[in-house]
Amino acid sequence: MTLINQLREKDEFVGFYLLKELDVKQTNATPPKDYFDIVLCDSSGQLPAKYWDVSAADKETFFPMGLVKVHGVVQLYRERLQIRIMRIRKSTPEDGVSVTDFIRSAPIRPVDLIYAIKQAMDSIADPEIKAIVSFCAAKVEEKLMHYPAAKTHHHAYFAGLAYHIARMLEIGDFICRQRPFLNPDFIKAGIILHDIAKPEEMIAQLGIVSEYSLEGKLIGHISMASNWITEAAIRCGIDLDSDRVLGLQHLVLSHHNLGEWGSPVQPQTAEAVALHYIDSLDAKLQMVEDALDTTPDTETWTPMIRGLENKAIYRLSI
Amino acid sequence: MTLINQLREKDEFVGFYLLKELDVKQTNATPPKDYFDIVLCDSSGQLPAKYWDVSAADKETFFPMGLVKVHGVVQLYRERLQIRIMRIRKSTPEDGVSVTDFIRSAPIRPVDLIYAIKQAMDSIADPEIKAIVSFCAAKVEEKLMHYPAAKTHHHAYFAGLAYHIARMLEIGDFICRQRPFLNPDFIKAGIILHDIAKPEEMIAQLGIVSEYSLEGKLIGHISMASNWITEAAIRCGIDLDSDRVLGLQHLVLSHHNLGEWGSPVQPQTAEAVALHYIDSLDAKLQMVEDALDTTPDTETWTPMIRGLENKAIYRLSI
Amino acid sequence: MTLINQLREKDEFVGFYLLKELDVKQTNATPPKDYFDIVLCDSSGQLPAKYWDVSAADKETFFPMGLVKVHGVVQLYRERLQIRIMRIRKSTPEDGVSVTDFIRSAPIRPVDLIYAIKQAMDSIADPEIKAIVSFCAAKVEEKLMHYPAAKTHHHAYFAGLAYHIARMLEIGDFICRQRPFLNPDFIKAGIILHDIAKPEEMIAQLGIVSEYSLEGKLIGHISMASNWITEAAIRCGIDLDSDRVLGLQHLVLSHHNLGEWGSPVQPQTAEAVALHYIDSLDAKLQMVEDALDTTPDTETWTPMIRGLENKAIYRLSI
Amino acid sequence: MTLINQLREKDEFVGFYLLKELDVKQTNATPPKDYFDIVLCDSSGQLPAKYWDVSAADKETFFPMGLVKVHGVVQLYRERLQIRIMRIRKSTPEDGVSVTDFIRSAPIRPVDLIYAIKQAMDSIADPEIKAIVSFCAAKVEEKLMHYPAAKTHHHAYFAGLAYHIARMLEIGDFICRQRPFLNPDFIKAGIILHDIAKPEEMIAQLGIVSEYSLEGKLIGHISMASNWITEAAIRCGIDLDSDRVLGLQHLVLSHHNLGEWGSPVQPQTAEAVALHYIDSLDAKLQMVEDALDTTPDTETWTPMIRGLENKAIYRLSI
Amino acid sequence: MTLINQLREKDEFVGFYLLKELDVKQTNATPPKDYFDIVLCDSSGQLPAKYWDVSAADKETFFPMGLVKVHGVVQLYRERLQIRIMRIRKSTPEDGVSVTDFIRSAPIRPVDLIYAIKQAMDSIADPEIKAIVSFCAAKVEEKLMHYPAAKTHHHAYFAGLAYHIARMLEIGDFICRQRPFLNPDFIKAGIILHDIAKPEEMIAQLGIVSEYSLEGKLIGHISMASNWITEAAIRCGIDLDSDRVLGLQHLVLSHHNLGEWGSPVQPQTAEAVALHYIDSLDAKLQMVEDALDTTPDTETWTPMIRGLENKAIYRLSI
Amino acid sequence: MTLINQLREKDEFVGFYLLKELDVKQTNATPPKDYFDIVLCDSSGQLPAKYWDVSAADKETFFPMGLVKVHGVVQLYRERLQIRIMRIRKSTPEDGVSVTDFIRSAPIRPVDLIYAIKQAMDSIADPEIKAIVSFCAAKVEEKLMHYPAAKTHHHAYFAGLAYHIARMLEIGDFICRQRPFLNPDFIKAGIILHDIAKPEEMIAQLGIVSEYSLEGKLIGHISMASNWITEAAIRCGIDLDSDRVLGLQHLVLSHHNLGEWGSPVQPQTAEAVALHYIDSLDAKLQMVEDALDTTPDTETWTPMIRGLENKAIYRLSI
Repeated sequence: MTLINQLREKDEFVGFYLLKELDVKQTNATPPKDYFDIVLCDSSGQLPAKYWDVSAADKETFFPMGLVKVHGVVQLYRERLQIRIMRIRKSTPEDGVSVTDFIRSAPIRPVDLIYAIKQAMDSIADPEIKAIVSFCAAKVEEKLMHYPAAKTHHHAYFAGLAYHIARMLEIGDFICRQRPFLNPDFIKAGIILHDIAKPEEMIAQLGIVSEYSLEGKLIGHISMASNWITEAAIRCGIDLDSDRVLGLQHLVLSHHNLGEWGSPVQPQTAEAVALHYIDSLDAKLQMVEDALDTTPDTETWTPMIRGLENKAIYRLSI
Repeated sequence: MTLINQLREKDEFVGFYLLKELDVKQTNATPPKDYFDIVLCDSSGQLPAKYWDVSAADKETFFPMGLVKVHGVVQLYRERLQIRIMRIRKSTPEDGVSVTDFIRSAPIRPVDLIYAIKQAMDSIADPEIKAIVSFCAAKVEEKLMHYPAAKTHHHAYFAGLAYHIARMLEIGDFICRQRPFLNPDFIKAGIILHDIAKPEEMIAQLGIVSEYSLEGKLIGHISMASNWITEAAIRCGIDLDSDRVLGLQHLVLSHHNLGEWGSPVQPQTAEAVALHYIDSLDAKLQMVEDALDTTPDTETWTPMIRGLENKAIYRLSI
Repeated sequence: MTLINQLREKDEFVGFYLLKELDVKQTNATPPKDYFDIVLCDSSGQLPAKYWDVSAADKETFFPMGLVKVHGVVQLYRERLQIRIMRIRKSTPEDGVSVTDFIRSAPIRPVDLIYAIKQAMDSIADPEIKAIVSFCAAKVEEKLMHYPAAKTHHHAYFAGLAYHIARMLEIGDFICRQRPFLNPDFIKAGIILHDIAKPEEMIAQLGIVSEYSLEGKLIGHISMASNWITEAAIRCGIDLDSDRVLGLQHLVLSHHNLGEWGSPVQPQTAEAVALHYIDSLDAKLQMVEDALDTTPDTETWTPMIRGLENKAIYRLSI
Repeated sequence: MTLINQLREKDEFVGFYLLKELDVKQTNATPPKDYFDIVLCDSSGQLPAKYWDVSAADKETFFPMGLVKVHGVVQLYRERLQIRIMRIRKSTPEDGVSVTDFIRSAPIRPVDLIYAIKQAMDSIADPEIKAIVSFCAAKVEEKLMHYPAAKTHHHAYFAGLAYHIARMLEIGDFICRQRPFLNPDFIKAGIILHDIAKPEEMIAQLGIVSEYSLEGKLIGHISMASNWITEAAIRCGIDLDSDRVLGLQHLVLSHHNLGEWGSPVQPQTAEAVALHYIDSLDAKLQMVEDALDTTPDTETWTPMIRGLENKAIYRLSI
Repeated sequence: MTLINQLREKDEFVGFYLLKELDVKQTNATPPKDYFDIVLCDSSGQLPAKYWDVSAADKETFFPMGLVKVHGVVQLYRERLQIRIMRIRKSTPEDGVSVTDFIRSAPIRPVDLIYAIKQAMDSIADPEIKAIVSFCAAKVEEKLMHYPAAKTHHHAYFAGLAYHIARMLEIGDFICRQRPFLNPDFIKAGIILHDIAKPEEMIAQLGIVSEYSLEGKLIGHISMASNWITEAAIRCGIDLDSDRVLGLQHLVLSHHNLGEWGSPVQPQTAEAVALHYIDSLDAKLQMVEDALDTTPDTETWTPMIRGLENKAIYRLSI
Repeated sequence: MTLINQLREKDEFVGFYLLKELDVKQTNATPPKDYFDIVLCDSSGQLPAKYWDVSAADKETFFPMGLVKVHGVVQLYRERLQIRIMRIRKSTPEDGVSVTDFIRSAPIRPVDLIYAIKQAMDSIADPEIKAIVSFCAAKVEEKLMHYPAAKTHHHAYFAGLAYHIARMLEIGDFICRQRPFLNPDFIKAGIILHDIAKPEEMIAQLGIVSEYSLEGKLIGHISMASNWITEAAIRCGIDLDSDRVLGLQHLVLSHHNLGEWGSPVQPQTAEAVALHYIDSLDAKLQMVEDALDTTPDTETWTPMIRGLENKAIYRLSI
């Protein structure tokens, strides 16, 4: 089975792919005819595809995010590769293929990421902080296995959020050793909690966010996490006015640093300052790494990256 | 007893005043001598005052926010009136004077303001919204009788917050009648809740804010109120994910309209839009009215007003 | 006759509609054929339509903003309804239909709006202010019956400007009673004059603005109205330097509040502050109300609204 | 008579100077004694001065902006020169000194500047443009002889406005010859009219602005000039809607280029673009030239200049 | 041979044109057929063109920026003129046509512009400044004959950069005579050096920039020129810390005035201030002049101009 | 000898201190008398001091940044400690005290910092990059032993710059191991070069910056370092257009990320993105750590910190 990023012009191939996008369109003929405007993907990349002469049954059969077996030919259309689909059918259990093999995903297995996050959570010394972090993490336990960290901004793939958290924990661990005046419990808690409400802010499937939830739009993940901390403290019988609760809410509320970036308060504890800059460092470098990874080796420039002042990244030849 | 704003140059007078500010300073003599640099006020205004030849006992006796009886003379110093204090003593219970008679205050009695607010609260039809509003209002019930709405920005005086709420309720009532598509329950609830955490965000005495509380700095009144709504819903057994809880939190979180003004989300319900603009209309007009009230009739311009693009207001002569 | 918003897929219908937009396009056939790409509307909404096989005579017959009788079929094209026009002809006087029945319009009849505005104008006590307001209003008397308040921003429909003025007068009346320090003459005059030059700033037909006038682009409605006040004072023999003329010009010039929003000076009288916030309150709430009205009841979110930080409005289910 | 900028430490001198500023202050002695805190100036510069042991009569005699004869000694106080006044009296007509000899002033005589401006005005070919320019210039004819162009920003001295206009006319003349597509009538008219209302916007004496006028604050010189053009057209019987009137108002209204700099519309004619950039070039270079002129030759850096991004200017040694 | 801007609907013509843009597209037929989507231009303007039924050989023959002989017909397509190409062939040396006759170009011959620039360079009195300017200019000597000053912003045509420099030298010369405190050597040097690295920042052919160079993206023309001055000083044996080298680098580095416009330092010498405003005046007026020149005389408004706050320019009818 | 931060009210003491600031002021007596307004410091902190009855000889003897032996008494003045100096003399070589013992300094010895930096430099694998880094570092070798990283912003003390570089190298080392796609040579080079010109941008003594150098103002440390790289490449015979030179200049030029923060280009290589965020993380955390270190343990809030959105940092009590 040929990977998407190995298909070349005029190749004829058969293989399984994920129907990432599917639109029914019409030709300009009179009368117009329906055809499928499709995006096929696997874990190596994606290509546009056309399936002409669509039947009424086809329109009831194929939907986005389904696995299909495709017999196709690769053509060049306006200087870009495009697949002309000759035959297509839905995959069946007998095919033995799994959707998760066809999507973009964090480079580390979700179970390992979750394990690393749990390890960090367990190592929190303060029992009240640990209790609050555990309560909040439990709310999204299942989703943390596969949710992305954002719609497109950064870590926008399967298990991207857990990957972001796990890597930030590594940096946090290093910085706490380099600067012992930082409280490691708050650093760990802040890293785990800062985006913990994102799985409820967004609606995602297989690491791809389709839209924001109602709560995501009206409240936002920052205030949602702050409310969860309030709920956690009440459920666990922890004083709502304690420095621990205050400190955790402050970490979450201030981690975007500025009002125009969504934080109603600015960082005012050492750990809140550290959290914001660790978050930036990891998110920005991941944007760069992902852009370079998905740009063919033959290109010296990546596409423009929104989160990096809309600049492209150049591959220095050294 | 002469009111502050009726004292004229060379007047000699005896009366009770509030020691609003008091600093111990030293003359440039060798050796330097201590004197008091004082601000005396009553409900009509305030004047600077000097008390020379302060004794060690005086320094243990007089403190800001205390009532004093003063025998003084009014002098002109650098084109401004200033009081030279000849004699001063603390007021005693026998004097029969009360601090609240000497401070700037909303033009309506606190009990009447609280009554109006309670009336509005009682008229909320939806029992869950009413329960949440009541729970949050109960948290600051006592403070609502006397807290200002802000440190200096607007309604910065005794019972200023209750006055702000009561007047907004009047506007809200009018707008709901003019535009029946608005939900009056949410409008009332939004008006009562939008600044409800301010008494815990600031530390105030007699309507004068001395500083922000720790919680006020690290969380801010907007997120505090959002957390209170979470707490209220839990305590009252109301579903945290219901449109009611979401709608109330959204009203509170969005009422500053923009991220740079402190709102983590922007208004996205009809009532949230209404709340922000009713709040602006009342706050800005109160700034104007208060500035005109405290500017002598003989002046055509008020001092500059921060909340109005730092502009002064001109009294048109018509 | 079926209203636009009641047409369903596969309906065949005959009725009168307004040709809101009409473009002649060409198919991709060789040789290409002309067809009409049309938007049909009535007061309930609008739908796209196609008329294939256009003749040379058709191209001389049909133009935007004309009434037509259509025999059509409703089809689904890319998940949206679209009309396929079978037959079309221009309406004739005998049809007894009037363009104004087919356009979006303020919910109150223009004559009633104008009556309300005239009532307010008549109630201005100061004769000089009344004279200036009358002079300026007379300049656009006819256009005030039907002009919108803006191209798209708010009140963008037939008689939208008069509706905006009439509603602001209601709010102004309430606020003047709530805050007696405001001068009702200036409030009324400011509300009537603030957008009075808009009918000369824009070129509109049936409430739809096609473009800005030359004067609108080079001078803008704010400075135009200021110049009209100068003209009015000269024509009526009123002193150009009087506080009345100054006060009225200041109201007009400052009502956008900030330089970046088009006001060369910022509000510096009580009435100018009031005017800006009454204007905001009415315009923003109208944007919300209109967006909700034109969004099908089955949708919980309106489209995004430019004037509201580009946010959509959610219909709370309570 | 020694010029201010030639006085050195320990000099004893007698001469005539302008009392630019005078404050009555009090010593810290008990009882405090009055003294004068003074700024003496002549056309070469200014120095602070102290006059101790002020009598009641002195306080009735000396006022700012008056000429005085001073017998003084130069002292060093905190590393800066300061005059200790031994004797002081007001100048009398017999002294034969004139205030205008003691103030900072444009380097060209006002009559010559006015002559140059009138020449330019006379050379306007279009009779309607000439009539409007003449009408507006006549309104401030007397003040144009001595008004500054701004309070502090640029050309802030005697006849500074006329100097600014005259120099811009030179640049305008050059640019019209370099780029013949520009209309010289509009360029001349725009240059003369752009700041023509400044003498009514500010209250100045001897080139020193004390404050803004009421009209200056509520209307601003840009809209005032626009209103004057309206008035001129009416008085001269010129059509208010003609391209000439529109073009002139557009020049005036747009010459600050951006809304946040006070222009309600942005330049949209060739001459309006030229006017803004000619204005900038002249104003900015004059700021630099004036700063260098008033900085002692021994200093390599001028003070910081507000209008130049708050930067100081360095004197390159070449 | 008919000029592009004289072609009218239904004209049939034969002539030489430049193939400014060429895309191979496909029709919607089944199977799709290739056609050329073309832009033809000459020095008078440009028009879109279609060439149907493209052969495989054609695709190997025609490329952008080549001269062709065309037999075509002018048609109206969606209210705009479009050429239908009947026959097309590449021009040959025998045709005696030259690409430079078909492109937009500065109104003065490159050799004359270069001559004027060299004259200015020769007139620099200071030998070290002259040496540095000469060294840097020599780096781009050949490209200065034809490079534009920018991709689209201003002077975006053949020899546009040299034209910009030459005209600025004229203004600089005038301003130095008007304000003798300016150093003419620095003014000339600043004008010649300020954009001297642009030919290495951009990749252009025939005055049309296709993209930025790697160095242009990573370093930018401002820092490139600064580095060239360093290199020049080293090569010519001039002290790197001298006021001359500092002064020249400062001119180059500060000429965009603000950090957000690309200047790492703000102007802090008289000549640097002058350079920025001379640059603005020339660039902005050229944008206006070019927009008016390329807008048909029958249109009163030019298209919107990015560099002028995105405003269009109106042709006043006087 | 008592450390500054251990002095308490009424203590009488003798010891060596650094005269950090010294102003000659005058009393208000008639005639006024000179006195010294002084700031005394040691490595533990600083206190204001007064020395009355200064003689003419004293004024010739004492200057800022000199070591003195003081006999003094601690007094309370306006609620703050202040030293009254009874006797004072300059320290002599016999006293055996060294200025460097009395100043604020990085917590690691300069020689160790320099050693760490040199180690990193030596470990650069690419010989050309190593040569350029070495050349630039050699320019400031001596100053790197003691220069601060900024005037007040961060690391503003003895050897602060070397400390900043050394700590960033630690973070850079960690990040390169965590993300192997980063080139360690460029990361090391970027960290060492990014602020390498600061010792020539500022004039500092003992870690205290008194002002910016001429070159610092006119060129800025970012462009200075870029020029040094050009110089280094020329001196070492490295191709100015190589990716190595380009890559190093890009690192330096882009490390402030945005134009308004002083970077003429934005980061466009992976290492440039990493450099900016490593720089931010280290600088911001050092601001926090230094603020906490110099705030008495009894205070829960530090003073406001400019570089952290002007916020103070709270010491959480956990």
